[in-house]
Parts: sequence; C-alpha cells; structure tokens
Amino acid sequence: MLATNPINYKEGTICALATPPGSGAIAMIRLSGSKALSIGLSIFRSSSKNLSATTMVSHHAYFGQLFEEDQLLDEVLFTYFKGPHSYTGEDVVEISCHGSSFIQQKIIQLLLDKGSRLAEAGEFTLRAFLNGKLDLSQAEAVADLIASQSKTAHQLALKQMRGGFSEKIADLRQQLLNFTALIALELDFSEEDVEFADRTELYNLLATLKSELEMLVNSFKVGNVIKKGIPVAIVGKPNTGKSTLLNAILNEEKAIVSDIPGTTRDFIEDTIVIDGYTFRFIDTAGLRQSEDQIENLGIERTYDKIDQATIILYVCDLSHADDKQMDRVLHEFNDYIKDDSKQFILVGNKIDQLDEIPAHLKEMLELETVFVSAKRKENIHLLAETLVSKVKDSDFGSDVIVSNTRHYDALSAALSAVKQVEEGFNNDIPTDLVDIDIKQALHYLGTITGEVTTEEVLGTIFSKFCIGK
Amino acid sequence: MLATNPINYKEGTICALATPPGSGAIAMIRLSGSKALSIGLSIFRSSSKNLSATTMVSHHAYFGQLFEEDQLLDEVLFTYFKGPHSYTGEDVVEISCHGSSFIQQKIIQLLLDKGSRLAEAGEFTLRAFLNGKLDLSQAEAVADLIASQSKTAHQLALKQMRGGFSEKIADLRQQLLNFTALIALELDFSEEDVEFADRTELYNLLATLKSELEMLVNSFKVGNVIKKGIPVAIVGKPNTGKSTLLNAILNEEKAIVSDIPGTTRDFIEDTIVIDGYTFRFIDTAGLRQSEDQIENLGIERTYDKIDQATIILYVCDLSHADDKQMDRVLHEFNDYIKDDSKQFILVGNKIDQLDEIPAHLKEMLELETVFVSAKRKENIHLLAETLVSKVKDSDFGSDVIVSNTRHYDALSAALSAVKQVEEGFNNDIPTDLVDIDIKQALHYLGTITGEVTTEEVLGTIFSKFCIGK
Repeated sequence: MLATNPINYKEGTICALATPPGSGAIAMIRLSGSKALSIGLSIFRSSSKNLSATTMVSHHAYFGQLFEEDQLLDEVLFTYFKGPHSYTGEDVVEISCHGSSFIQQKIIQLLLDKGSRLAEAGEFTLRAFLNGKLDLSQAEAVADLIASQSKTAHQLALKQMRGGFSEKIADLRQQLLNFTALIALELDFSEEDVEFADRTELYNLLATLKSELEMLVNSFKVGNVIKKGIPVAIVGKPNTGKSTLLNAILNEEKAIVSDIPGTTRDFIEDTIVIDGYTFRFIDTAGLRQSEDQIENLGIERTYDKIDQATIILYVCDLSHADDKQMDRVLHEFNDYIKDDSKQFILVGNKIDQLDEIPAHLKEMLELETVFVSAKRKENIHLLAETLVSKVKDSDFGSDVIVSNTRHYDALSAALSAVKQVEEGFNNDIPTDLVDIDIKQALHYLGTITGEVTTEEVLGTIFSKFCIGK
Repeated sequence: MLATNPINYKEGTICALATPPGSGAIAMIRLSGSKALSIGLSIFRSSSKNLSATTMVSHHAYFGQLFEEDQLLDEVLFTYFKGPHSYTGEDVVEISCHGSSFIQQKIIQLLLDKGSRLAEAGEFTLRAFLNGKLDLSQAEAVADLIASQSKTAHQLALKQMRGGFSEKIADLRQQLLNFTALIALELDFSEEDVEFADRTELYNLLATLKSELEMLVNSFKVGNVIKKGIPVAIVGKPNTGKSTLLNAILNEEKAIVSDIPGTTRDFIEDTIVIDGYTFRFIDTAGLRQSEDQIENLGIERTYDKIDQATIILYVCDLSHADDKQMDRVLHEFNDYIKDDSKQFILVGNKIDQLDEIPAHLKEMLELETVFVSAKRKENIHLLAETLVSKVKDSDFGSDVIVSNTRHYDALSAALSAVKQVEEGFNNDIPTDLVDIDIKQALHYLGTITGEVTTEEVLGTIFSKFCIGK
C-alpha cells in the first residue's frame, strides 16, 4: 500500500522504548527503517560472530555487547527482523537490555546519535498500516488491546485486530459494489428512458445493507460499554447504606483479584472488573462524600443517574422500614422495572440489624432481592454474581461489535447514505443521483479500514498511541 | 556448580514478568526450567510451523498466537533458549506480548496453570549462579546494574558483572593459596623443629596481600559514594541563600537533562546527576524548611553535616557583607580547606544585588570562588561544572572499586585475618596456628564470589532482587 498511498509517511529509521517505562529486569528498544540493521550493528559487538547484513539470520537472538565508542554499555540480546517479515514490514531490530532507566536512555541516545530518530506516537503501527501489514481498524485495535483492562474489552480489541471487524466491513463494501454494478447496468439503459425491468434484487440488497448497518450502529452502545465499563447506578432513599455498599463492592473485588507480583492492575476509582466485565459506578464520588448532599439535591438527580446507567442497584434498608415504607419501596421498584432498556437489582441492606423476618420477604424474594449487610460485608459476593448474570443476559455476545467512536460515526454516515438511496428509489429520483449516495456510503466504509484516508485522520488516530507502539 | 552445590535450589519451572510493570507497547514474560518449553508450547500455536522440542530452533523468534483452551489471548513472539545457552543455564522461553496489564496477568496465570510456578525475587539470577553462569559478585552486580541511575554507578556495576572484580578476588585467593603452599612446606619440616630457612618470600607475599586488601577496603568509601551519590553539604551563615541555591541547582539539572519520552528518570529528592555523577545533598530538607531552625541549632549541627560530606559548598552573601565579615568568612574558609579529606567550593552568592566589586574579590578569586545569583539562577551551570571537576580530581578512576557492603565486610575480615598472620609471624606463633588464619582469609574471599556460601547468605542477596530477574 505504501507505493500507492505514501500519505503521512515520514522518512527515516525510527527508534523507541517498546516496554513500559521505569525500571525492571529487562527493557526492549526497537528500531524500524531501512537503516535499522546498520545503525543497530554500529553499536553492537558479538564475540562469536562476524555480523553483517548478509551474514545475520533474521529472527535470531544474538547475545553480545553494546558499546559507546570503546566503552561497554550493556550486555544485550539483539534480534533482527528482515522486512517485510516484521511488525512494520520494514527492517526491524529489537534490543533487549538490562532494564535500568539509565541504560534505556543511554541506548536510545546512542541510536539517535547514530542516525535514527525518535519515533512519534504510534509510528511503528502507522508504518505497519502504510506497508499493508494491518488495515486501519486493525491498527486502532492494537491501541485498544494495550489499553484493555477487562476480558471483554480485550476480546473485543483482539477480534478487531485479527481482522474480524474488517471482514465485516469488506463484506458490506462488496454488497455496495454489487449494488453499484446493478445501478450501472440501469444507467446504461437510462438514455432509453426505461426503468430497469425488475428492481426486486436492488430492493433486497438495500434492505440487507440497511439492516446490517443498523445492527452495527446499534452495537456501539454495547461496544462502548464494554470498552469503558458498564455504567451502574446505586440509588435508594437516604441512609439506606448506598455508600457503604459501594465501598463493600469495591473492596470485595480487590480481595477477589489475585494480584500477581510483578504485574499491576490499574484500578480506576470506582471501576471494578468482575469475571471479565468492567463495571463503572456513576457519580459515586458524591455518594460517598455525603449522603446528606444527595438528600438536598432531591430526587431529580437520582433520576439523572438512572438515565445514564445500564444497571440500577436499588437499595432499601430492611431494618428501619415499617410495612408502609416497604410497600412504597416495592411499588417504586415495580415501576422502575417496567423500563426494559435497563437492568434492575433490588438490594435489601442491613440484614445484620434484622430482628425478624420482614413481612414483605415473600414479595421481595419474587423480585430476586439480594439480601446483604454492606457494613459487615456479608453476601457482597452474591451481589457481584448478580451483576455479572445481568450482563450475561444482555446482548453482549453478538458477532461484530463496534466500540470505536470514529467507526460509529462512519457507519452512521454510511447508514444515512443508504437511507437516502432508499428514499431516492421511493421518490423516483434519477438513478445517477442515487449513485452518488451509494458512492458516499462506499467512501464512509472505506474510511474505517483505511482504503480512504487523509493525513488528518491518520494524525488523529496515531497520536493517541503510546510512543514505542 | 549445580551438581556439587545444590544449595538453596528450588525445584520447578519458574515464570515471571521480566519487563517493568505497567502498560506499554510490549511486555516480556520469561520461563526457566526443564519444562519451560513444554509449558510454553502448551499455550502457543504458530500457523506456519509444527513446533516441538526437537523441531524448534534455539534463539529463534517464532511469531504465533497464545490460546487459553480455544480462546485466542494474544499474538506474540516466542523465543526458546536451549540450556545451557541461556541466561539461567536452563531451558528458557521468552514470550513478547502486547503490553496491557490484563494480557500480562492472564499469560502468567495460564503459565502457572500449566505447571510452572511464580519465580521468587532474583530466582532467575540465582539459577544462573547455581549453574555456574555467573559467580556471586557478578550476580549481585546484575541487581546493581538495574538500579544504577548514573554513569559512574552503571560503569561500576557493569565492570563487576563482567567479572573484573571477580578476577581481582581470584588473584588474591591464588596468592593466599601460594602462601598456604609455602606454609605447608614449613609444616612438613615442623617436627624437625627448625624454622624455615628463609621467610623473605612469605613476608613479601604477606605485605602484597595486606596492601592489596587495604586498597580494596579503602575503595569502599569511594564505591559507596558512587552507588549512593556523592554527599554534598551546603553550609554558610544564615540568610546567605543556601536553600535558594539548592533549589537553583536542582532545577538547573532538571532542565539540563534531556528527557527522552518513553523513558523515565527517577529523581530522588535532593539527588541530582550531573555529567554522569550522582550528587546527594545531605540533610537539606531542614535547610529548606527554615533557615531560622539552623540558626537555633547553632554551629554544631553544621559541623555534623560537614563531617558526612565529601564536598562542601561554603556559601557567603556578597551583598550584605562588610569588610570585617568577609574577612571572617575567608578566614573560616581557609581553615576548612586544611582538611584534605574533603573538597571545598566557595560560593559567592547574590551577585545580582552587588553595587560594586567587593574589596575581597582578588582574594576570593584566588580561592576559585564561584560567583552566582541563586535567586536569578545565574551561573548555576558554573557551579555544576565545578562540582563535577572536584569529583574528577578525586580518586574515582581507580581500577577495582568495592561498592557492596557485603564485599566490604568480607574484605575487612580477610584483612584482619592477614594481619593476624603477620602478628603471628612477628610473635613466633606456631605455624599451624598461623595456617588457621590464612584459611580464614581464604574463606572470607570465597564468600564474595560464592565459592563458599550458605543458604542464608544467598537468601539475603537474592531477596533484594526484583521478581523477574
């Protein structure tokens, strides 16, 4: 692809630290470009072999030493990946060194001195794209893969990186191309001013395209949720223990996750991963600061929260509720669950303070209430399991899911264009005008995988990558 | 060495994250042990090749996929290092994966499930030691190398890792062995109750040994300083601008260092690296908190500080000093510099407030005063250069430098034993008793490189390593 589309390609051999910053046993520095090997070899010596571009075996890890002039810098492993059989499609050299910040910085400095330049954010992957090793949506998935913190987000990114999504887009593009072929046939006859005998095939194709595009556009809600976490709101009357419950859930999870030394898990505040799903608690900072505040802001704010959430935890206090109060609670909850765009979980809190079986137990059991003591952290694992089961009930297992805003925008634009085509047909718009809308739809789909792209688009996409990727 | 000395060796194939924790483009996970390859291959598939222990090429990076059962986990590079041609001397597998925390943790979990166990701190290097790939002082140098933050500390660790220090110790041991050979000869004749005809050779050998051990023991002061930073004290009368000067120096350095994106430099508070040397400012927190405090604590505390330091910055205020005051300052400074165990730098501060050339300028120039304005950050780079030149003047370039407390203790013990031998000779102690002291000296030297060691010693050494090394 490079030869025909050298857009945004910047010359030179690039280098960068590829492993996470900081100190560790080992760090890895990567070079890519036509001079990768000669620059790498200019600072590398190996006792056993006389190394050169002709004698070096691709993909072989050579043990040796790095030198700054005659001063030994480190003992390293040096691996050469001869293009196009490399990540970027160019000649690539990987140097595994001891992981001190000092050594990392020193080696990069040396490689810069020897004629490479520091890679820009995402430039390795950009080159992979420009050299046809990945399409654009696959390249974007690489960044998602590195950022993914949960099993579902990871699987989504991996599928996209492996080309599952690209195949779907290619399939849609093919259908659109078939459509234009049929249209072209009609255009050939247009001078004769006769309408094409049978438009059934065209209508069918249009219907399929529309429904598949709609499915993809709609999947974005799910995809976004997988990527950013499933929004959960904890609501309930004041003093039902909402903030205590949130803390109990967050702690429970931190206890469940077995932290393997040497790896870290970045817990974003109020986000937890249970069984591979990320749950994101909405606006919980306020909840924890003061329950009084919530009281003052009144019920409206609670409804706002409910609006953003996919799952609602409705908390009631079993210990202080008389029959009348519980009646109201159950009534309100029953009202809620009529909203079938959301999942509701009724949580009966403060079971530790319960003297007797609540009168409404039977009714509550029917509503699949989870009985907990947030204070004593009792049954919190049951609540976690219930959260997961609510997610599994949802439509998260579907085949291709859109999780990227750019793809969502392009698909939405393609869908509008297809709808324009449909409208055009219904209103007997001239076929050549309809053809323009179809070309538009093709264009938008092409931007997703990068058949059609601009410097600006590429710049935006790859600037979000980390340096070294 | 493993066969004869299986001390502290724990069975099993070990695995760990080798790259720094956190997210990055690439992370690397390492396996070592007899089952490294079979465990690695149990989760790895490569489209192009049918991989097995017999078909795999050592040191070759195979591209492929990791699977958990039938679920794709990541695309990786898989490199097998067939023992003994590996870091540990055992079979080693290195897996380069995408650097998300999620993937890192998942792969390690999988490798544990497949029969490896998590490596303990330093266990890879411990195995390298037990398998004779490194001696003990070289193994310790690996940890120092990773921790080193300055050029000098890095060079020191590198030299030790490459065996420079070990050779010196081996040489001393050989001299001691020669000595015991001569002693043994004397012991053979001991029953005839005649003293060995000529002890000149023994005395000469003893003198050499003593002086070389003393040199090494004395080098520890320098070695420790290189490793931990050269201690610098900023002293001077109140309100001469000491704390402002310190801040100016620290800021100057942070500006000088070109931070390469993707690498980090950990600035320990009040420690700076200039031109490859680490300078550590002593007890400067107090200095910065309040100058009044210093005033109250009086002059004694200043002398304490001077005592710990290798370099003293003596600050005087040029703007508020009359002739009498400057006389006292110069007099005091002249007293200081008689102490030849330290380096002194006279700093004339507040040149920005200077209306006229100070009367004492000539005298100050002779003392190589650095004239600065700490407030306006003027000439701070001159001060930095002066600091470096003072270090270069010192005896830091010597051949073998001891930087490890354990080695220092062992060398000191060996030196005492050698002194005992000398005393024994001088006091006509029976030769067989002298022989015991020599054996002691041999023992202590042996602990440095690990010819003699205990589980406890190894445990202490390697527990200071990071996991994955």
